[in-house]
Amino acid sequence: MLAEIRSLNEECGVFGIWGHPNATQLTYYGLHALQHRGQEGAGIVSTDGEALLPLKGEGMVSEVFTPEKIEKIAGHAAIGHVRYATAGGSGIENVQPLLFNSTTGSLAISHNGNLVNATQLKGHLERQGSIFQTTSDTEVLAHLIKRSGYATFEEKAKNALSLLKGAFACVILTEEAMYIALDPNGLRPLSLGKLGDAWVTASETCAFDIVGAEFVRSVEPGEFLIITKDGMRAERFAYPAERSICTMEYVYFSRPDSDIDGINVHAARKRLGVQLAKEVQIEADVVTGVPDSSISAAIGYSEQSGIPYELGMIKNRYVGRTFIQPSQDLREQGVKMKLSPVRQVVKGKRVIMVDDSIVRGTTSRRIVNLLKEAGATEVHVVISSPPIKNPCFYGIDISTAGELIAANNTIEEMREIIGADSLTFLSVDGMVQNIGRTDPGSKCGHCLACFTGEYPTNIYPDTVLPHEKEKVK
Amino acid sequence: MLAEIRSLNEECGVFGIWGHPNATQLTYYGLHALQHRGQEGAGIVSTDGEALLPLKGEGMVSEVFTPEKIEKIAGHAAIGHVRYATAGGSGIENVQPLLFNSTTGSLAISHNGNLVNATQLKGHLERQGSIFQTTSDTEVLAHLIKRSGYATFEEKAKNALSLLKGAFACVILTEEAMYIALDPNGLRPLSLGKLGDAWVTASETCAFDIVGAEFVRSVEPGEFLIITKDGMRAERFAYPAERSICTMEYVYFSRPDSDIDGINVHAARKRLGVQLAKEVQIEADVVTGVPDSSISAAIGYSEQSGIPYELGMIKNRYVGRTFIQPSQDLREQGVKMKLSPVRQVVKGKRVIMVDDSIVRGTTSRRIVNLLKEAGATEVHVVISSPPIKNPCFYGIDISTAGELIAANNTIEEMREIIGADSLTFLSVDGMVQNIGRTDPGSKCGHCLACFTGEYPTNIYPDTVLPHEKEKVK
Amino acid sequence: MLAEIRSLNEECGVFGIWGHPNATQLTYYGLHALQHRGQEGAGIVSTDGEALLPLKGEGMVSEVFTPEKIEKIAGHAAIGHVRYATAGGSGIENVQPLLFNSTTGSLAISHNGNLVNATQLKGHLERQGSIFQTTSDTEVLAHLIKRSGYATFEEKAKNALSLLKGAFACVILTEEAMYIALDPNGLRPLSLGKLGDAWVTASETCAFDIVGAEFVRSVEPGEFLIITKDGMRAERFAYPAERSICTMEYVYFSRPDSDIDGINVHAARKRLGVQLAKEVQIEADVVTGVPDSSISAAIGYSEQSGIPYELGMIKNRYVGRTFIQPSQDLREQGVKMKLSPVRQVVKGKRVIMVDDSIVRGTTSRRIVNLLKEAGATEVHVVISSPPIKNPCFYGIDISTAGELIAANNTIEEMREIIGADSLTFLSVDGMVQNIGRTDPGSKCGHCLACFTGEYPTNIYPDTVLPHEKEKVK
Amino acid sequence: MLAEIRSLNEECGVFGIWGHPNATQLTYYGLHALQHRGQEGAGIVSTDGEALLPLKGEGMVSEVFTPEKIEKIAGHAAIGHVRYATAGGSGIENVQPLLFNSTTGSLAISHNGNLVNATQLKGHLERQGSIFQTTSDTEVLAHLIKRSGYATFEEKAKNALSLLKGAFACVILTEEAMYIALDPNGLRPLSLGKLGDAWVTASETCAFDIVGAEFVRSVEPGEFLIITKDGMRAERFAYPAERSICTMEYVYFSRPDSDIDGINVHAARKRLGVQLAKEVQIEADVVTGVPDSSISAAIGYSEQSGIPYELGMIKNRYVGRTFIQPSQDLREQGVKMKLSPVRQVVKGKRVIMVDDSIVRGTTSRRIVNLLKEAGATEVHVVISSPPIKNPCFYGIDISTAGELIAANNTIEEMREIIGADSLTFLSVDGMVQNIGRTDPGSKCGHCLACFTGEYPTNIYPDTVLPHEKEKVK
Repeated sequence: MLAEIRSLNEECGVFGIWGHPNATQLTYYGLHALQHRGQEGAGIVSTDGEALLPLKGEGMVSEVFTPEKIEKIAGHAAIGHVRYATAGGSGIENVQPLLFNSTTGSLAISHNGNLVNATQLKGHLERQGSIFQTTSDTEVLAHLIKRSGYATFEEKAKNALSLLKGAFACVILTEEAMYIALDPNGLRPLSLGKLGDAWVTASETCAFDIVGAEFVRSVEPGEFLIITKDGMRAERFAYPAERSICTMEYVYFSRPDSDIDGINVHAARKRLGVQLAKEVQIEADVVTGVPDSSISAAIGYSEQSGIPYELGMIKNRYVGRTFIQPSQDLREQGVKMKLSPVRQVVKGKRVIMVDDSIVRGTTSRRIVNLLKEAGATEVHVVISSPPIKNPCFYGIDISTAGELIAANNTIEEMREIIGADSLTFLSVDGMVQNIGRTDPGSKCGHCLACFTGEYPTNIYPDTVLPHEKEKVK
Repeated sequence: MLAEIRSLNEECGVFGIWGHPNATQLTYYGLHALQHRGQEGAGIVSTDGEALLPLKGEGMVSEVFTPEKIEKIAGHAAIGHVRYATAGGSGIENVQPLLFNSTTGSLAISHNGNLVNATQLKGHLERQGSIFQTTSDTEVLAHLIKRSGYATFEEKAKNALSLLKGAFACVILTEEAMYIALDPNGLRPLSLGKLGDAWVTASETCAFDIVGAEFVRSVEPGEFLIITKDGMRAERFAYPAERSICTMEYVYFSRPDSDIDGINVHAARKRLGVQLAKEVQIEADVVTGVPDSSISAAIGYSEQSGIPYELGMIKNRYVGRTFIQPSQDLREQGVKMKLSPVRQVVKGKRVIMVDDSIVRGTTSRRIVNLLKEAGATEVHVVISSPPIKNPCFYGIDISTAGELIAANNTIEEMREIIGADSLTFLSVDGMVQNIGRTDPGSKCGHCLACFTGEYPTNIYPDTVLPHEKEKVK
Repeated sequence: MLAEIRSLNEECGVFGIWGHPNATQLTYYGLHALQHRGQEGAGIVSTDGEALLPLKGEGMVSEVFTPEKIEKIAGHAAIGHVRYATAGGSGIENVQPLLFNSTTGSLAISHNGNLVNATQLKGHLERQGSIFQTTSDTEVLAHLIKRSGYATFEEKAKNALSLLKGAFACVILTEEAMYIALDPNGLRPLSLGKLGDAWVTASETCAFDIVGAEFVRSVEPGEFLIITKDGMRAERFAYPAERSICTMEYVYFSRPDSDIDGINVHAARKRLGVQLAKEVQIEADVVTGVPDSSISAAIGYSEQSGIPYELGMIKNRYVGRTFIQPSQDLREQGVKMKLSPVRQVVKGKRVIMVDDSIVRGTTSRRIVNLLKEAGATEVHVVISSPPIKNPCFYGIDISTAGELIAANNTIEEMREIIGADSLTFLSVDGMVQNIGRTDPGSKCGHCLACFTGEYPTNIYPDTVLPHEKEKVK
Repeated sequence: MLAEIRSLNEECGVFGIWGHPNATQLTYYGLHALQHRGQEGAGIVSTDGEALLPLKGEGMVSEVFTPEKIEKIAGHAAIGHVRYATAGGSGIENVQPLLFNSTTGSLAISHNGNLVNATQLKGHLERQGSIFQTTSDTEVLAHLIKRSGYATFEEKAKNALSLLKGAFACVILTEEAMYIALDPNGLRPLSLGKLGDAWVTASETCAFDIVGAEFVRSVEPGEFLIITKDGMRAERFAYPAERSICTMEYVYFSRPDSDIDGINVHAARKRLGVQLAKEVQIEADVVTGVPDSSISAAIGYSEQSGIPYELGMIKNRYVGRTFIQPSQDLREQGVKMKLSPVRQVVKGKRVIMVDDSIVRGTTSRRIVNLLKEAGATEVHVVISSPPIKNPCFYGIDISTAGELIAANNTIEEMREIIGADSLTFLSVDGMVQNIGRTDPGSKCGHCLACFTGEYPTNIYPDTVLPHEKEKVK
């Protein structure tokens, strides 16, 4: 399960709205719905047509914003961002949207994703005299826009975007317009919606639901949308490559009530669980899922296998950033955090434990142990995705290859390490077919790099993993 | 569903531990596990054998305590309390444990429950010269102990406890001993456990699991346990009445991983769902449960009926106390809070929506509406408990009779009010038999007062409901 | 100088107002003016005629109150309190005003002072069944009122007050009236004022100035004032003893802009400085005062002696509760706090350093050292009060006799300990005559106990010093 | 008096230390001593030789830093900054030191002052492709360094500094060195000191005293100091122009215990007071000074005139950022803030009120009124500087000419506006001679622009006043 990772490094979420008198407040609610995509920092930049008004801070959405502060930056358009947490905490300067001032007009950017040619572009820009105040890839885009030789902002932005390689879902705000762009591979999700006459964009559709907006369509790979007081125009900054949306968005990252590219996340996960039960037959008494992201797959597994679904463990909802970690001493005495087993459910039972993925294996070992201590006679681990053997360069921080348990061990070795009675992974085909995308002229519509090692873009020799950026600085 | 109530008024949770070098820290973790029982305030009083050391504050456990503060009150014994939220917020003075100083020894009390003769006792005590600094029933107990004519603390406490009528699960701490007491009807749950040589008590066993303690047994009605450095002795302050544990602890209040009197809460709820599906046959496409407390019943219903269980709505985990409520204006535009429907799951479907209870009906109406707006063609509401027609005087604040929708309407009228296509309640017998208690010589082992109006104790003319206490002051 | 003490233990301040639509807000401003009298906690209890509404917390006035919170307890009458800081921090329960609820009417008390018979009274009350939730003397008064056999609240209160021995300046609030009382020796200051039709009372007149109230007169020893909607009546609960107002209020404790019993504090301090220069002749180049409380005396000394007054050291205004204390290591390297010498002013100069008092001597030694390191060739310490040889039982916490440097050393020994070139104290007569009270039929109008050992009241064998109360608990 | 201004817009303070194991902590203490120079924000960037480690935030020094946070950025060198408060609050991005990352080495800058050619330089840089993330002049310097064609960092920095016009006192930190620079006119103060083997720099010497460092010398106009592990080298980036240090640093801005260019501030202010008493003879009973900055001058005036110095008003120390402003209603009823008159001192007296300056006149009018209401029969205002008739472009925000009372009124008109019985300003010559600089080959060593309109540098047509920067953005 990716919870171990998610607690350290998460992706980001973006939101934007143009043409609504309550744009700033609605962005606040939109960010609230995207909170699971990043808890380190949150920000909004709005505009009243005169200036760009920033408000951001470290922490959760509810910590950063107050009614008074939001009132101060009221505007008819706004973009927002939630930022993933990094181990070291890189400080307020990296909290987005980034805002760039200029005598010829200002510019704010919210960005989700990771560029693979950021190092090259930075070096290039620095040699021309650019200086960087953040360690964020987003700043590269701003410099490229500014330096572009084209005449209009629109042309400058398209030119700059065409130079980026990797994953990026961006919303750009100026005093006159909001711009939306998605990388040519469509690696990250980005949706377009309407709320009355206002245009809305968000990483996930759950942010549309919270503000009452209607889903219009997904932003297409390579697309560049321009939204002004005169309405919306769709252009392109690049020919779309083969669509390669991140599989992990379906498997564990997005909220179950979101539709990613028209496919509901809960429904897809349930199908993955059904498929798992088709691929493997295990005799057991109960099926349970690691909360929260594996519940849907566990229900599907139970439905298909006929083995009853039970709440085998529950998550402590109140373990947040201010939770006092137990000392090593107390941990050894058995003080639990986050997950508690439901003793009466698992005691004396053969348990099928459904999880969404295994990264380093430490969490899986801990959960198997938890269930066994609670009296489970057998624990069979079934994973609703294939083994992760390769690092991700597109924004999900799943460690370096050296840390990935599946990169260095056979499945049998992994089973032994985590202490399970059996260990099963979903097949790549089983996963792809059951997520159920039908991208015309595309192999499968997904980026499968972390499973297969086939990256949809070039990976440059000095491409930097998200979690390594801190060290660069 | 009782979420509407729970967000305003909840019960409390108590915890105590005697004889462990990390007693204070372990109490912190125990209170963490009981956080769902009260979020208004939290406190710990510990002892190092020399003095009673208090630490308390308004807010959540993680807001009140810091490592430094906990370190300062380190002791070998400690009791703790989480307090339910009240609409007005009655301030720090009511946060427990209450601490009473005296030149002849101090005394701290954590208390869960509500007394039905508090007004009488207070009047009596005031006429003798007592003054009250809180609006809490707990203070009455302290005065009664102090005034008792008996010679030893033990005798004084037993004498005082014998005068109380109603619901009370108490832990008392002095420099020399920890005392545990449960009302003669056993209206509230209270468990006894061991962690190595240390004795532990808690409202729910989930607090044992988090600290690694083992469940020993339930505290019995009318029991008075004395724990000192010489070990534990069990005595009685009253003959036990017929056991009448609150049904709602099973139906919605406790954590699913807790065992209440030896019965697992999740398992009981699932059985209620199974029974529901036996009592009513509805043709539908999907079963869904109102998160979090109705998930188990929904799974049981699905299992029994064969209709697939789906995540029909999800709860926004991040809507906490600092969430900025949308203005009326924005609410009308569709800004949602707390619950989001999963559109693709319910659209065009006949939905069975399982909930644990209906109090005023407003929340049910809102959820039915949510599902219909999301495209459900039919919404059938099935409730895993009988209609609530009477107020609770024992600590769960379910409004006055005037506000209870079931007290004033037929089921058909209720169905119309909440806008459902059908509305079904579980039968009283179906509920009692499936929770599955087997109390020898007892009618059913439960307090069913809110359903049947038969209160297990006298109700005095001036008995005060929990939510009315604020006004008294 | 008493700064060392003041930083640990200070007296308290009380404020009350009756009959003004903005009573709560005005109390906030009044407490602001009294902030120097206590920084550990602050509280207000107001009334709208229906109930007593409390609001209190630990910390400074500006930390405890917000506009929203104040708005919530708006009333036409209010009493407030600032509490002195104690080393250990005894927690929120001791923050005043204390509020006592009762079915026959509530009662709130703000109290400045210390009782000498509190232990006796507590023992007596406990034997009758009273229990105590705070370690404050104030609670004793509430119990005595409650237990009094008299018929009316007024008679009960007068009866209770007549049993108290020691120092107390009290304001009591009920829904119907505000009561003001001062101990028979008038040990602590208490003033009465008017703001339009509203009656106001405060420990110091600087609180009248901030709200625009006019000084009417001092509350007299033994007086009991009753203020209701029908106006003010003055009664007595005791025959006044010889007036014995605390000398230290003039010497260092009160704000220089306050008038204590009609005598301005700054003016009195300046006269003490003038007198000092008459009592001792020292050849020197500059006069300087330890900020803030000794500035007035230093100016007086300079004026009389003709030696120019200079800013020889300045106080760091920003060293507050959140200041990070330098490690021992850094302190030894010279990191300063609180006071910085003004090098160019003292370098190569013979300096007269005026301070208000010496308690343990540690601070004086530190300041003398500071000036010498900054280049002063001679440092002559002159103190604007006599040597403190005895503890105070009336509310100013000047340590036990064992810690008082003057109780155990000759002046020459003290001079050597603090490293000064000379050390001079003001004579008792010089002090008394120059504060300038003219109490008819009174020896001097002052309590001089800390200097002379003659206590104006009985001191009981088990009288507890303020700073020892923490330990009792 | 400039208090009205200071509360809105203040200058900044810089600090730097190289070569000390506790560099970060010592910077914290240094910033503490400079807190009066800016209360909006504070920051430290330190280095351990490997990377530049930032820590900054909005608010006071004691709010921004905690021991844990400081520990995390421990280093052997550090620079710090306190930022002046602006009305609107321009947000975290402008809090210094600014940090610029680059693949070829990072760079942090602390800057005090205001450039007069910032708009030109920004336009120039933007046309070359630079983008700006702050509204601070400091960012201009970073861009110029980065773009400079010279080979070494040293040469780049000198080249960049030589392009700046206006006031700037800068400290620059890289992983390898600390650089110190002062503008060619020496408009702002900057001192150099040593603490053992470590080099220290600060805006004022009071920051040396707090850390125990010794003053070595002032940084000279046009100087560029390079400090590395090999020691300190002094170079120049420009020929020094005529020294023109800001007069206001002596008159009201700096702390009295600081020496600015070898002249103690308190001593200089006292001489200004002496000179005032020579320039004007007024018959009066008492002399009083507006706290805190005018106390020294008032003492000097008293000494020279023989009229006794008194504490005529006192400042409320606890009115900080969280103080609840009284409503208009309460203000009209007389609720005071900040200053309270000492009634007994001024009642029935002819008062000489010494202040350091008059800007808009509103505060002076309020204070005169305060004294008259308190009973002063006459109030004579004497100002220890000449009339301010021109705006400042070098960092002290004294409004535009339109708001300056002295720019638009005769002294008699001003007297009438503020309601004084007489109004006297110090002569320019009297001020300059008594501050007492003796700069060889310089007219007077001071910038007198705000008094005389003679600016020591060119003022460009689009030079932006500090308080107008917010609007630009």
